[in-house]
Parts: sequence; structure tokens; C-alpha cells
Amino acid sequence: MEFLQLYWSIMGIQNLPLTSSPNSTGGTPPPTYLYERIARFVSDLVERGALKPGMRAPSLRSVANRFSVSLSTAVQAYRLLEDRGVIEARPKSGFFVSRAGRETLGLPNVSAPAAKPARVTVSSGIISLMQHASDDSLVPLGCAIPSADLLAAGRLDRFLARAARVKGTRYNTYSPAHGDPDLRQEICRRATRWGQALAPDEVLITCGCTEALSIALSAVTRRGDVVAIESPTYFGLLPVLENLDLQAFELPTDPQHGVSIEALEAVLKHGTVSACLLSSSFNNPLGCTVPEERKRVIAALLDRHGVPLIEDDIYGDIHFGADRPSPFMAVSPETDIIYCSSFSKTVAPGYRIGWLAAPRHMKKALEVKFAVSLCGPALTQAALADFLSSGGYDGHLRRIRRVFAENIAHMRQTIAESFPEATRVSRPAGGFVLWLELPDGIDGRRLAEAALEEGICVAPGDAFTSGDRYRNCIRLSCGHVWDDRLDRAVRRLGALAEQAATA
Amino acid sequence: MEFLQLYWSIMGIQNLPLTSSPNSTGGTPPPTYLYERIARFVSDLVERGALKPGMRAPSLRSVANRFSVSLSTAVQAYRLLEDRGVIEARPKSGFFVSRAGRETLGLPNVSAPAAKPARVTVSSGIISLMQHASDDSLVPLGCAIPSADLLAAGRLDRFLARAARVKGTRYNTYSPAHGDPDLRQEICRRATRWGQALAPDEVLITCGCTEALSIALSAVTRRGDVVAIESPTYFGLLPVLENLDLQAFELPTDPQHGVSIEALEAVLKHGTVSACLLSSSFNNPLGCTVPEERKRVIAALLDRHGVPLIEDDIYGDIHFGADRPSPFMAVSPETDIIYCSSFSKTVAPGYRIGWLAAPRHMKKALEVKFAVSLCGPALTQAALADFLSSGGYDGHLRRIRRVFAENIAHMRQTIAESFPEATRVSRPAGGFVLWLELPDGIDGRRLAEAALEEGICVAPGDAFTSGDRYRNCIRLSCGHVWDDRLDRAVRRLGALAEQAATA
Repeated sequence: MEFLQLYWSIMGIQNLPLTSSPNSTGGTPPPTYLYERIARFVSDLVERGALKPGMRAPSLRSVANRFSVSLSTAVQAYRLLEDRGVIEARPKSGFFVSRAGRETLGLPNVSAPAAKPARVTVSSGIISLMQHASDDSLVPLGCAIPSADLLAAGRLDRFLARAARVKGTRYNTYSPAHGDPDLRQEICRRATRWGQALAPDEVLITCGCTEALSIALSAVTRRGDVVAIESPTYFGLLPVLENLDLQAFELPTDPQHGVSIEALEAVLKHGTVSACLLSSSFNNPLGCTVPEERKRVIAALLDRHGVPLIEDDIYGDIHFGADRPSPFMAVSPETDIIYCSSFSKTVAPGYRIGWLAAPRHMKKALEVKFAVSLCGPALTQAALADFLSSGGYDGHLRRIRRVFAENIAHMRQTIAESFPEATRVSRPAGGFVLWLELPDGIDGRRLAEAALEEGICVAPGDAFTSGDRYRNCIRLSCGHVWDDRLDRAVRRLGALAEQAATA
Repeated sequence: MEFLQLYWSIMGIQNLPLTSSPNSTGGTPPPTYLYERIARFVSDLVERGALKPGMRAPSLRSVANRFSVSLSTAVQAYRLLEDRGVIEARPKSGFFVSRAGRETLGLPNVSAPAAKPARVTVSSGIISLMQHASDDSLVPLGCAIPSADLLAAGRLDRFLARAARVKGTRYNTYSPAHGDPDLRQEICRRATRWGQALAPDEVLITCGCTEALSIALSAVTRRGDVVAIESPTYFGLLPVLENLDLQAFELPTDPQHGVSIEALEAVLKHGTVSACLLSSSFNNPLGCTVPEERKRVIAALLDRHGVPLIEDDIYGDIHFGADRPSPFMAVSPETDIIYCSSFSKTVAPGYRIGWLAAPRHMKKALEVKFAVSLCGPALTQAALADFLSSGGYDGHLRRIRRVFAENIAHMRQTIAESFPEATRVSRPAGGFVLWLELPDGIDGRRLAEAALEEGICVAPGDAFTSGDRYRNCIRLSCGHVWDDRLDRAVRRLGALAEQAATA
């Protein structure tokens, strides 16, 4: 009890009414669930400096007592805080405030997109952003591509070299429509760890997550249909929607717990949307993760309205907290879900291997795959299967998770030190991108253009919507190991933003 | 002169009117062009046994004199005959009737599809045909996949192993949107040999020819548009059209010189079609090649009506004659053409590397590529570029051309010996598929099903159309080196057809 009482006395709060916890996160509405309110309360203490980095956090028991909740609810709250990088568990010592949480940047506001569907037209800016990704002379804060050095895919490449020598002839044919059987087996084996029960026949190997999303959308929508998505959204999704003649219904999205359930419920009730496409965890660009309890509520809503969900879990393996967040498909196995992911963010962007799992839509998904690219390359799939079954992947994941978490912490700290004071920054508990909301009057696109002239590549915020929004935002990728070059580039960006603010 | 006069006296012809040359090829209309009439005349002499395999063919000069044409027209006629495998040039000795031409099978009839556009709906049979392709227990006469042993891609695999070791880290990132620059350079370098002037920036690497065709169609059509295609057509094209909501206008197609120009002109005049998709050479399944002169006429027609052409040249490198047929793009560089091809038929079906060249549509093609799969895998492209620049590809092509030509000859001979007498068979001058038109009353699909029960995979004719046609046809693939197993399978097929004929 002692810690909690201490902080409450510091904060001048005696009997905290649960519905009006102190709120330092801009326009974020009060949390709906008890465990979220508790988490919000603790993270507010950290934000306000009452709980300092490295200090011991209140014990689970004291929290349960003080809030009159069960111990399991307290555990759920702390797991959320852990996922968000606010606290960290130390073996046999309890919970401590993360050292990474030194800066006091506010979170971006909950987005408020237009409450109507929109045809998607994509500017050519997105493709040039991709072109910049292969330009070594630029500081790589633009595209969300992990550094090849960091991925240390040398081991995977050795498996490929071996597969080429040993299996080359045998694999030099069209692979089965589903993709390499061993690779599908490995994917299913891993998925069981987070409670996703899949059979290899329910998995289809694709050319990255992009093809997975495109096939998934083709399987459950028709031209002209409306798809509910997060706002801001991954910019690469917009060309996919445009190419399929689909409309986007952007939903308000909280930078911490994801899409607004109320807004989703409203469009579902209205019968506007044919499908819903959401990120499972550490979404790009906001970094938000839909907590399990909210996933359950969303799934139930979709069930009720008979609308399928496409979930994009590409960042799921890059969790900074102890546990991997469960995807929607694991939380609600009975819901009509197509699960999409890839190995591009964790080990092999150059291999272009993604997959989808669509227990209810395999026939159609296979037909579309056949129509768009017949089948995928065989040897790279075989090499990846060998790599996964060799057991090297988990150690690799542990290493890159730590590096990405450190990158994010460095980046946030450097932003806090160099950007205009009112800059708001996302606080993802996984992945490797940050979303910045710049103070009024700073144009993110102009900032990105000015940065590009100085050899720094960043993604302008307005690329992340089908509408005319987020001009005051930019996204920074932290996929490269932090070094002086990145440090200088972020500080230079901050200076450019300061100039823009006073101009 | 002596040979020609001899044959004419044998045939009882004194002054052959050019418009009524003897015609043993079923419903084939009289050829339009002089060189084609000459070629038809000579091949009729072979068909009728006047010119026997191994015998010397009339000299070019004697042909030119007798028909009162220029020597270059005679050369054009003989090149066509060479391409069709009717005659072969022997260094310093002149032209001889091919030894392969022993059997006297009639050619399939010119197709007569319904003269109207049709929505494409594909049966799931096509995907199961692909599934059978990876089933080693079946005799592989079904899918048009060259045998991995034959391709001897061991050398390419060694390049891949080396690329994985040497370039792995550097290439483990998203490749430029166009694809590997070295590979595009090599593709352009090769294309100049047959007069196709391309810049690397006009080339886009794709996931096989399927993705190339799908992107090409997306670039020049909209949902609901009508596309003029050959009939019968490559069955893999049908799911592509269906997936893009495109309608097919199937055109009558001659098993030797391709699509009917008259029919094409009619649909163009009528303004029905938005694009035309044709095979350049050795089309699948008919094996027909559009002669250069006809390519020019078709291109001029399309120019006049402002309709773009998508050409599929995937079999172009597998020519049995001395020269590689020129694609439309080389014959008529000013025409609005998207050129599609791949390495799947010649060296690496397992690598899934194709490309398109679209000088006028690159921006749109890149946007579509970005939307369907972002970009392709990097290392396999780099390995293929290294393989091509190493110079090994040409020797490899020479070897497989010879093998495929022998396969085709064996297969035709075995068909002649074992199928019902009235069976008509295509006589391709390249590629490795044969199209069989079975005598009235034999159902190709039932034959294919009966064969499958006996472990023999063949493609039923009705898979090659969007309409209800070609039930009396089957396609046999000759992508595997001829051996006893293939011989027995083809004879068994013949017996099954005989049974069906008498049933």
C-alpha cells in the first residue's frame, strides 16, 4: 500500500473517483474498462513525474486493494503498462518504472476523421517515398524498413544458399498454390504459442503483407464497397484500396488503444461497411495496440453485424513487453477473420514472404492468388522454413525487440530535447515507428520536403489518410540502430520544426 | 528449278493459281500474303508426301522464279517453314525437309468462337490442374511446366547461393519498385538482339508472367471492359480476366498464323474492345505464331483504332527454327504495346521472375505493382542477373530448344501411331505444348478424367476458353524429356481415346 498512498498524497488525491482520473493525454476520452483506468492512472503518475524512471511501481496487491478490483484485473492493467513500456517487471523484485520513460512528451490526440466513406486516390508521393528507401545517401527515417545490418539475416541467407545447392533442382517448379508446406507448418506452430489455432491448409503464402492484404480484401469485398480502417492508417494500404476500387471509412483512433469502438459500432449499425481492416498490435503509424478486452468487444460487434475482419499483425512479434499481444483471431476464434502478416519487419524484407490465414475464405483467397501471381517463389520459402525450424528465430526476435525498444526510447528522448515544446509523440509498446503531432502552424509535408533537401527522409503525415488530414504530422521510422547520424538528423528535424513554428 | 518442276508434275499441277493452292489443313482459309501462300504450297507438298523427310527442298531462287516474287519474299516463306519445323537449313547445302515431319496428322481447325464478349467465370478445375503439377506420381502432360531436370538450373542455383552469401545483407531490403537494376539491364540487352529497343526504366520485374499480364491489364482497362484474346487461350489468363472483372472477346485463331485479322478488325471497328491481348509466338495452347507481316498489319489496325496491345511472349525464346520470331513490339515500335514475358519456361519456374515493358504505361504499371505486391524479392533477381550476364543462358537455350523440338516430334509421332485416325494435332515451331482436336464424339474432359484415374495428367480443352467450347480437345505438355514413361502414357491416352470413339 505504501507506494500508492505516497503518490496519491503527492498528487493531492484522496479518494480517486474512477471515472475522472487525471488525464494528461490530450483529447483522449476516459477509458471504458477498469483495467485501462488503472493503467491510465499509473501512467499519469509517470507522466507527471510522481513516479520517476527506475522507481518501484505500486504492488499488484496494493492496486487491487485500492481500486477494489480482483488481482487478475490488476495484472491485466500492469500487463498493459508493460506492453506500453511504462513499467517493467524485474524477476523476484516486482514492477519498476521503465528507464526509457524519461521524457514527458504528450501523446498525439485521438484522431477525428470525417465520418463518411471516401474514394481513395493516392498521390505518387508514396511511391517516391519507397524509392528513397533504397537510397543509401539519405538518413532512413522515412520508410518502415528495418536495417539489414540489424536483421543480421546472414543466418537466413546461409539457409538460402544451402537450399539453392541442395534443393535447387527439386524446387525449380511452380510451388503448390498454398505455398511451401514446411513453411506453412512452421507458421502454424508459432501461431499456437499465442493461442491462434491454425491448420497449414488455412494458410496461404503471399508476396509480403501487401499481397496478403490485397488478396484478403478481394476475398471479402466487391468493387465500390466501403472498408472501415484506422485513421491515420498505413500509407501502403491506400494504393491497395484504390487499386481494388474500394472506399475507405476512416475511424477515430486512439494512439494507445486503437480504433474507437463507438465509431465502429455506429458504421456497423448504419450498414455502411462490408469489411473492417484493423491492425492487431503496434499499428503503423500510431503504434497503438487494441487491448485484448477491446478486441473481444470489437469481434463481438463484427459477429453481430456479419462483417468480416481483416487483421494486419505485421508488427506483432516486435513487442517490448514480456508477452506477445494476442491477435484478434486468437482472442475470438469464432469471428470471421482473415489474418495477415509477414516476415518483412523481423527478418527478411528482401525475401517478400508474407501470409494470410483465412479459415473461412481459403477457396476464394487461392483463386485470387492464382489470378494475381499464380504462386510464389519456392526456394526462399524453403530456406525460411529451414531457418524457422532451426530455432534461430526466437533469439533473433529477442535481440531486435531490445534494439527497437532502445531506438524508440532514444528517438523519443531526442525529440523531447529538440522539437518545439508542444510536439506530441506516440508511445508505442512495440514496432519501430513514431507518430509526431506538431504544434499548430507547422506543415508536416513542408517539413518533410525541407528535410529531404538536407538528405533526411521522413514520411509526411498526410500520406497516412485518404482524406485531407495530418498535415501537422510526420512519421519517423526507428528501424536502424541508433547512432550519431540518426541523432544529428532528428535534432536537425527538430530545428527545422522550430524554424517553421516561428516563421 | 528441277525439284519444283518435279513436284508440280507429281502433283499434276502446271500453272498453280496462287489463290487456290492445295489445302490439306482443314478449314484454314487461303493465306493472305504471298510468302504465306508459298509456304503453304511447300508444306502441302510435304503433307501429301511429295516432298519426303530428308529430301532437298526447292532452292530459294527456283521458288522466286516460279512464283515471280523477289528473293526476299522467298526467304520470308522459307523462314516461316523453318519456324514451323517443316524444313531445316543445312550449312552450305540449302534447305531440306525436316526429319521430324514423318507423320501426316492434320492441323486443328481454325477456331470459331462466339462473336461476342463474355463474362469470365473460371472453374476450380484450373487450380487443381496446377496442384497436380507438383504431384510427382502423375505423368506430367498437364501443366506447361518444363522439367526441372531439363532446365539444369543448377548453375543458376549456384549463382543464388553465391548471391545469398555475398549480397545477402545488402539486398535484404525492399528492392526498387521497378526491380533489380542489373536484371532490367540484362533484359534490355537481350531484347536489342531481336530489335526491341528498351530502356531499363521501361521494364518492371514481376512475379512471373501472370503478374505481368494482370498489371498490364490493370494499366489499360477498367472493370467491365472487353479484351480481345485468342481462342483457345492460355487457361491461366482466364482467372486474371475474371479477377479484374474484364470480359473476354475470343477471336477465331488459326493453329499456324494466329488470330484472324478480319475478326479483329471487325471488333475494333465496332468499338467493342478496350485492349487486345495476343501471344507473340508459339502461343499456348495452339502453338501458332503470328508472322511478322501479319504482326505489322495487326499493329497498324490497333494504331488506327487507338487500342493498346498486351503481348505475351513467354515462349519466344523457345524457337525451333534458326531465328527468334520478333515480338510485336520490335515489329512495330510506335504501337501502344505492353510486352510481357518471364523466365519460367526457359530456366526458373521456381523463381517466379517475369517482367513487363510498358514505355507508355510505366507510371500506372508501377502504381499497380505497388498496390498488389509492393515490390519483388531481391536476391533471386540479383542471382538471375548474374546468371544472365555470365553468358550461360544462350548455351542453355540452344540445348533446351533442341530437346523441346525433339519432344514435340516424338509426341506427334506417338500420337499419329496411337490416337484415332481423324485426330488433328497442332504443329508448333516452338514452345512445348500440343493441341489435339479429337474426332467427333470424343469428350476431352472425360478423357482427361479417365487419364487422371490412371495417373496421367492432361489439360482438358474446355479449360482454354471462357465459353463452352473445345470439349473435343485436349492439350498435352511436352516439357519433360521423352522417355518410356511418356511414350506409354501417350499410347495409353490414344487407347482411351479410341475406346471413347467406339463407345
